[in-house]
Amino acid sequence: MNKKAVILLSGGLDSTTVLGIAKSEGFTLYALSFCYGQRHDIELKQAEKIALRFDVAEHAIINIDLRRIGGSALTSDVSVPKNRSLGEMEENIPITYVPARNTVFLSLALGWAEVLGAADIFIGVNALDYSGYPDCRPEYIAAFENLANLATSAGVENRLKFSIHTPLINLTKAQIIEKGLALGIDYSLTHSCYDPNREGLACGKCDSCQLRLKGFQEIGSIDPIKYE
Amino acid sequence: MNKKAVILLSGGLDSTTVLGIAKSEGFTLYALSFCYGQRHDIELKQAEKIALRFDVAEHAIINIDLRRIGGSALTSDVSVPKNRSLGEMEENIPITYVPARNTVFLSLALGWAEVLGAADIFIGVNALDYSGYPDCRPEYIAAFENLANLATSAGVENRLKFSIHTPLINLTKAQIIEKGLALGIDYSLTHSCYDPNREGLACGKCDSCQLRLKGFQEIGSIDPIKYE
Repeated sequence: MNKKAVILLSGGLDSTTVLGIAKSEGFTLYALSFCYGQRHDIELKQAEKIALRFDVAEHAIINIDLRRIGGSALTSDVSVPKNRSLGEMEENIPITYVPARNTVFLSLALGWAEVLGAADIFIGVNALDYSGYPDCRPEYIAAFENLANLATSAGVENRLKFSIHTPLINLTKAQIIEKGLALGIDYSLTHSCYDPNREGLACGKCDSCQLRLKGFQEIGSIDPIKYE
Repeated sequence: MNKKAVILLSGGLDSTTVLGIAKSEGFTLYALSFCYGQRHDIELKQAEKIALRFDVAEHAIINIDLRRIGGSALTSDVSVPKNRSLGEMEENIPITYVPARNTVFLSLALGWAEVLGAADIFIGVNALDYSGYPDCRPEYIAAFENLANLATSAGVENRLKFSIHTPLINLTKAQIIEKGLALGIDYSLTHSCYDPNREGLACGKCDSCQLRLKGFQEIGSIDPIKYE
């Protein structure tokens, strides 16, 4: 098989695992990242290193200023919550939610996929461990897949049947890490923290750090990245 | 009523008519335009003038480089077809199609609408006069509306029920112009040409110019813009 796939790559643990899964399934890899007005560009630098390590066919980075839209702690100066319990995390949609982000990202992945002639799009959404984001749920993904085949020339003309792959959607963070380690993924390259310090070290206290640390802990493994 | 609406505004004849329709329906207007790597920025300049004329509450222009994706004559140096007959225009999806463009634009409109607390999004798509674009058809719009309410916190939590308004979808170009003139729209501000000359004058020969000229002709009116 030599089918092309577009993989959304943030430089985090989840999307890097997805890249590894797509590779293990024999796809030719087209990684897509976004410079969208994140608070920091560490994850983007890591995404570039990861794309190199995986020897992708192409890594596109698209600039899109989501700050103009506003509405999220991830694209503004609002402070990121720290030291929350799992219960607190699950209670409400977090302020790190970026309005319509996955829809914007998947739309651009779809456009690129159509140009490349790639029917397969991979995204590392997860509905279990962190259920607060509406655009990480299976019903959302199904609706996007339906849209994708109506939205494009390739879909309408039956040249491509677009498929949105979400291999992590029902896995816990521990299961994701276990899968990635089995695939030989080097998690020292990945970055998950919402609020790293000036040296780029992860805080260990935001929701994203806590879930990551808990995941490694549950499988009795040690997170290879440094924390402040 | 003082409901907010987000209106996609390209600076063309259709989207300007839609802006007029939303205004006539009493919405508070939030105009959204994109700098997406178009071949020229004339339409963006016109969009700014139009937004001012309509006294919108806010006009956002978001930068997003669709050239990185490629695949369209509108974002590359491929030449735009000229002097095609209506039959030729209807035959195939034209090379001026930009992959997933409306999906990208609607996604960003959705994100902004969620932040603003606006349930209503207007887009000037048209399925009749120029049926070649897959993302201008009613079934596509219905799929996006469904997606919008699954993709967002506001939709999922029932704070907003998003609605995609397509007031032009079943109108001919002549009917669109007739409606706009009845609303007092000054079409001299609008720009439709895919391939204007250096002075910014419309070519009169591309599909977009031809359909526009034909529309004015059919209602016995004169297009107020200058052609080269």
